[in-house]
Amino acid sequence: MPVRTSSATWNGTLKEGNGEMKLGSGKLDVPFSWATRFGDTPGTNPEELIGAASAGCFSMFFSALLTKESLPPKRVSTTAKVHLEDGPTITKIELSMEAEVPGIDDAKFQELAATAKARCPVSKALGAVDIQLVAKLV
Amino acid sequence: MPVRTSSATWNGTLKEGNGEMKLGSGKLDVPFSWATRFGDTPGTNPEELIGAASAGCFSMFFSALLTKESLPPKRVSTTAKVHLEDGPTITKIELSMEAEVPGIDDAKFQELAATAKARCPVSKALGAVDIQLVAKLV
Repeated sequence: MPVRTSSATWNGTLKEGNGEMKLGSGKLDVPFSWATRFGDTPGTNPEELIGAASAGCFSMFFSALLTKESLPPKRVSTTAKVHLEDGPTITKIELSMEAEVPGIDDAKFQELAATAKARCPVSKALGAVDIQLVAKLV
Repeated sequence: MPVRTSSATWNGTLKEGNGEMKLGSGKLDVPFSWATRFGDTPGTNPEELIGAASAGCFSMFFSALLTKESLPPKRVSTTAKVHLEDGPTITKIELSMEAEVPGIDDAKFQELAATAKARCPVSKALGAVDIQLVAKLV
């Protein structure tokens, strides 16, 4: 099974400094600073990476569960809202998913979506975060 | 405190389908598929996002701790190796950090690095992952 390598650099102090995060597949060419993490300045921050990882892993895992039940999806689209609160602590991720799944009924859809939320690798890794899901069959 | 939004789409089945992950600050313009997650095909995967988030958060938090002790760093550089093992489960993240910190001794350096590893928001969120650290004062 794979090992993935990413990296980051932080230059200087917390509030005056700046950083860079680099994925194995490439550099994030957007600013990373105190202001892009805790303020409204455009740029990146660890929380949006966690959100993309959560949405991506959940969507892929849900497709796998559907495929296993012979109900392959056309599309699974998920948005993740990651809440950073005082501490600072990542307290909650709200996943909002909609999917096109030919032939499924809503009960089965909701059941498999809940399973994917609980069991996808990123959900399991984020053991200290309250992950919530709203799932919609379209 | 901020809420960060990211999203992902998965099209089709697990092995034949493909996906896309989008950060709040921009789209990841690299392939995302079964082969880029579980194989060696160039592209992205949730694990490299988790790795970048972990390295970025830890580096920034360590700078904050050093700054608080009046030992502002010139540079903190961290690599994260994220292990995805059978399950699939993210079992372990190996952080390897080196930093330039004028005036610090190694004992204080190691103490604050260990604190940053334990307390940064991404480390705390990843409650189910064994996070290991090797820290080097340069």
